[in-house]
Amino acid sequence: MRIGILTSGGDCPGLNAVIRGAVVKGDRIHGQTFLGIKDGWRGLVEDDVIPLPRHDVRGLSRQGGTILGTSRTNPFDDGGIDQVRKVMAHHEMDAVIAIGGEGTLTAARRLADEGINIVGVPKTIDNDLSATDYTFGFDTAVEIATESIDRLRTTAESHHRCMVVEVMGRHVGWIALHAGLAGGAQAILIPEVPQSMGQIAEWVESARDRGRAPIVVVAEGFTLDGEEHPDAPRGLDAFGRPRLGGIGERLGPMVEDATGIETRVATLGHLQRGGVPSAYDRVLATRFGTGAIDAVVEQKWGTMVSLSGTEVVTVDLHDATTVLKTVPRSRYDEAAILFG
Amino acid sequence: MRIGILTSGGDCPGLNAVIRGAVVKGDRIHGQTFLGIKDGWRGLVEDDVIPLPRHDVRGLSRQGGTILGTSRTNPFDDGGIDQVRKVMAHHEMDAVIAIGGEGTLTAARRLADEGINIVGVPKTIDNDLSATDYTFGFDTAVEIATESIDRLRTTAESHHRCMVVEVMGRHVGWIALHAGLAGGAQAILIPEVPQSMGQIAEWVESARDRGRAPIVVVAEGFTLDGEEHPDAPRGLDAFGRPRLGGIGERLGPMVEDATGIETRVATLGHLQRGGVPSAYDRVLATRFGTGAIDAVVEQKWGTMVSLSGTEVVTVDLHDATTVLKTVPRSRYDEAAILFG
Amino acid sequence: MRIGILTSGGDCPGLNAVIRGAVVKGDRIHGQTFLGIKDGWRGLVEDDVIPLPRHDVRGLSRQGGTILGTSRTNPFDDGGIDQVRKVMAHHEMDAVIAIGGEGTLTAARRLADEGINIVGVPKTIDNDLSATDYTFGFDTAVEIATESIDRLRTTAESHHRCMVVEVMGRHVGWIALHAGLAGGAQAILIPEVPQSMGQIAEWVESARDRGRAPIVVVAEGFTLDGEEHPDAPRGLDAFGRPRLGGIGERLGPMVEDATGIETRVATLGHLQRGGVPSAYDRVLATRFGTGAIDAVVEQKWGTMVSLSGTEVVTVDLHDATTVLKTVPRSRYDEAAILFG
Amino acid sequence: MRIGILTSGGDCPGLNAVIRGAVVKGDRIHGQTFLGIKDGWRGLVEDDVIPLPRHDVRGLSRQGGTILGTSRTNPFDDGGIDQVRKVMAHHEMDAVIAIGGEGTLTAARRLADEGINIVGVPKTIDNDLSATDYTFGFDTAVEIATESIDRLRTTAESHHRCMVVEVMGRHVGWIALHAGLAGGAQAILIPEVPQSMGQIAEWVESARDRGRAPIVVVAEGFTLDGEEHPDAPRGLDAFGRPRLGGIGERLGPMVEDATGIETRVATLGHLQRGGVPSAYDRVLATRFGTGAIDAVVEQKWGTMVSLSGTEVVTVDLHDATTVLKTVPRSRYDEAAILFG
Repeated sequence: MRIGILTSGGDCPGLNAVIRGAVVKGDRIHGQTFLGIKDGWRGLVEDDVIPLPRHDVRGLSRQGGTILGTSRTNPFDDGGIDQVRKVMAHHEMDAVIAIGGEGTLTAARRLADEGINIVGVPKTIDNDLSATDYTFGFDTAVEIATESIDRLRTTAESHHRCMVVEVMGRHVGWIALHAGLAGGAQAILIPEVPQSMGQIAEWVESARDRGRAPIVVVAEGFTLDGEEHPDAPRGLDAFGRPRLGGIGERLGPMVEDATGIETRVATLGHLQRGGVPSAYDRVLATRFGTGAIDAVVEQKWGTMVSLSGTEVVTVDLHDATTVLKTVPRSRYDEAAILFG
Repeated sequence: MRIGILTSGGDCPGLNAVIRGAVVKGDRIHGQTFLGIKDGWRGLVEDDVIPLPRHDVRGLSRQGGTILGTSRTNPFDDGGIDQVRKVMAHHEMDAVIAIGGEGTLTAARRLADEGINIVGVPKTIDNDLSATDYTFGFDTAVEIATESIDRLRTTAESHHRCMVVEVMGRHVGWIALHAGLAGGAQAILIPEVPQSMGQIAEWVESARDRGRAPIVVVAEGFTLDGEEHPDAPRGLDAFGRPRLGGIGERLGPMVEDATGIETRVATLGHLQRGGVPSAYDRVLATRFGTGAIDAVVEQKWGTMVSLSGTEVVTVDLHDATTVLKTVPRSRYDEAAILFG
Repeated sequence: MRIGILTSGGDCPGLNAVIRGAVVKGDRIHGQTFLGIKDGWRGLVEDDVIPLPRHDVRGLSRQGGTILGTSRTNPFDDGGIDQVRKVMAHHEMDAVIAIGGEGTLTAARRLADEGINIVGVPKTIDNDLSATDYTFGFDTAVEIATESIDRLRTTAESHHRCMVVEVMGRHVGWIALHAGLAGGAQAILIPEVPQSMGQIAEWVESARDRGRAPIVVVAEGFTLDGEEHPDAPRGLDAFGRPRLGGIGERLGPMVEDATGIETRVATLGHLQRGGVPSAYDRVLATRFGTGAIDAVVEQKWGTMVSLSGTEVVTVDLHDATTVLKTVPRSRYDEAAILFG
Repeated sequence: MRIGILTSGGDCPGLNAVIRGAVVKGDRIHGQTFLGIKDGWRGLVEDDVIPLPRHDVRGLSRQGGTILGTSRTNPFDDGGIDQVRKVMAHHEMDAVIAIGGEGTLTAARRLADEGINIVGVPKTIDNDLSATDYTFGFDTAVEIATESIDRLRTTAESHHRCMVVEVMGRHVGWIALHAGLAGGAQAILIPEVPQSMGQIAEWVESARDRGRAPIVVVAEGFTLDGEEHPDAPRGLDAFGRPRLGGIGERLGPMVEDATGIETRVATLGHLQRGGVPSAYDRVLATRFGTGAIDAVVEQKWGTMVSLSGTEVVTVDLHDATTVLKTVPRSRYDEAAILFG
């Protein structure tokens, strides 16, 4: 059996560990042959495919990034189903393992509906997929954001400043919630729960009054009470710069004006996406990789692997890509007890 | 309401985060007063109790160890229930939050059976409690072991050596399994699955033949096929030294003899217990701390907080302390696919 | 003898280790009494002074920031010499140890010229003081920048992008030079050596042509060939945001336009100033602290401690604050060999 | 010009960065061709030599270990000078760059005396070479030891224990001195300064009396007052185990007996040798690599590169390998002020 693997969408620590887990298990247990599809869907529509022998995945579990490259190409925009069929046929590819986020999995679902033998592996650094408890990459992103908060706190305290830290999370606040809790933030601001400047200032001042240097952790998709969530994407612009009016940038001066406390802003940006994966993410990604092989062998086309409690299971891609997993109000309120 | 908190048993990253979570929530939401019981049960039988105001727990989420100190004292050996009642009465203590492992939780259960208002928080760096998916400390221990394996690997490769890495796990192999998977070990040896030297040598040689420097991760409680699991505790002796015949030490020369590959041993020991907790452990520990307050307020005496999937729930201490959570054979076999 | 200590200017990892080294040596060897001057010169002109017993400095060697706080107050703007004399007299302060950068040491020199018993400790995260081989804080900043480059590289490679990384260094390029060398950058841009876009594009394209994801490390004070070095400070604005037209932000789009390679920008900003100091900085800062006590005991007023090779010596503040230590052209050319 | 490179002796973080620096500079600036000599002198006497094109050294600056492998082979034991000449002639090798410690450099000196074109690069993780201020690897080892002390301290404090931490240093105490200073140790024990148990106990008890958990950092070559320094090597035995009677193991129980304080021992061993080099070591190693090319081009046979202050210079191998660089008594006494 010949299996193609692709990684699509934004970079995420653990992609290489998924590839390694799948190739080693498929090669050793089932004698499968693997093909590397370059740069996500692009390689599948443009026929950019390389052999992926077991030797080439050795030592990958601890390596960040993806040896296959990635892109944001959508197979239906660029050539579409016929081209995919043609390239698969050309390489005698029996199945495809597609590793990616909501967009990638939606495309995978459509291809499966068209009869393509495809299995998905969820990849969302934001942890916004409802069909899995966690995905690899999230833990590493939270760890990096938390270590950054630890570093920024000492400087904020030395200067008696407030520090606004913008972390990833365009539509959900999971990274902000976990990094804020871990870093002992005095305020956590997430897309799911708009807040007024008055409330934010109250948290900041109450922290200052107790002798703390207030740390405000804000997800890039957070909006102030009454603001509309902009349709335009937020956070980093085409040049990786904090967007004009990126929330961190906008919030800093407002906090300083409202509280009179000197305020600085740090936008973590791409730092949260790269580098060596945490042990947690290496284990989860490896299990997703070997789990994807099980799904292929059982011909569970149109499904993706998923973490349920401590078990790796499979779920139908139709159920996997419909609901955004947002932070429940109860989790936010629980965290808010520690603010101020 | 006046609540005493104690931490008991071996050190574990996240203990301080539990204390902080409990004190801040209890103080802010319920106006509770907190008392710090020094050095686990010892403080409760010897009346070594201090005030624990909110101010004293600030910044604790990222601090390793426990500000309350710990010991291995058993309340029933030392003074017992009457003494506990007396000390609690003396301090007008309405309830106790006991943070500890299997022994501590068993003692807590017995005290609850005697009518003491007590709530448990599970603490097991080995992840060996069946009543919770995970506990704080485990993730940090796995991360430290994994980083150590990454470091040891480069040296093993430079010298074309085999490296035997002994990690914690007297009765269960969770740390070995996860650190071994994350570190890309060529063999993982756990108490649950005895192996023959022949099998171990086969894995080591197969790795060497493919040009790898074989890394063997062994849990301190692993036994060779046919060996009895010693009743005597293993790993570190009274002086923190690898016990004479500690498994890592014993295995190293045997691997070298069996394979002819120069072999070194590293025993990680206490390094796995200390230092700054990972973000994952800070979040989980904080949630356990606030969850313990909920259990106290709901007067769920004789229960402990527990992680189920992504939710913090409570379970009866009678169910919590009976079954050891071992590594299922299926999980081990899944990992073994990546050996050699 | 009663000695006041102050920390002034921007935060820098190792400040607390200097304080600890000075207090412990002075207390134990010379029976000196220490006073903590809050927030740099502000505390000395506004009489904000606290006792600083040995107990209060315990465990500080590994703690980032400064327990004394810091500010950018200039004693001559705010009250000046008479006020300093008055506050010192009020506290029977025999001498002052001033820990800070070029501005602080210049102020210290002027105070010494006026007969104040003062000894300096150089603090420059940028490593821009000619009178010392290195100062504490620089090594930590370089380490953080290097780890960031390592992380950003994996993502750049996955996306086949160029990454522009802006590091600290308004007037000198030491952090950019060392972090760029350590991170294996394909181009390093420093204030001392303006470059044309053509040259930068050549380095970026040559890296791309050899299959690398080009990493461009740029110091905030770098200027393109022919540009004037702006009088206005660069890098972070009053709100800690990358200045409109901050060099990283400006360079990213220009690189993309010139090379056609998708380019992202990361501005490390405050992350480089905070957190746990590296072991190197802890040792150097501790030695500077104990060295400052020697200078006080020997009444070397108007001097500062300095690192010369492996020795801690003292130099006259008049010689210490006149020449900016820039990156020699030979060091830059040596590094440039590894570009592209 | 055809240049062979070898790495010899114990593993050390930065070896790969030296190789990269040399190959890239030699290839780009001088059009030199490089040959990789496998496993140190072994490859040179057994003719195990591979091409080492620039492409193969890419990305090596941050990679621990050595891609050339290493061994403790002595060229004069195994085949000797004639064999070296023969292998060099066979590969038309004009010169050799030998990267290694005291033994390697002594062999290099003898070969140079015999007319072999050879240049040395000092590699000593112990920092025990008098002819250079520092060498790569030392900073990383100190950083790892310091981080370990930080971790062990929290556990020692939670259990009110004393912790004895054995670090590398058979003949000199530099790693112990720097890691002990950085970690805030309550006692540092080095080969250069024997101490009595009475003195050690005094330090430990004084720390305990001030409420600290005493951390004793001991170099593997330390001897108690009156003890002879054993001729037999210390620290790790042939199986990487703490030697029976390794100093850490022996000291732990003695400290516990003398003070009544529960004491644990941690032997860091190989952890100090492996893994990603610190930024400091990457920069120094890279500079040594490019410096070695300068020495080759200038035909400075029989010399080695060396760090003097901030400059890379060359020194005659005859002067480089005669004097062991020990910790001066003044540096030790300075550190001892912070003990207890």
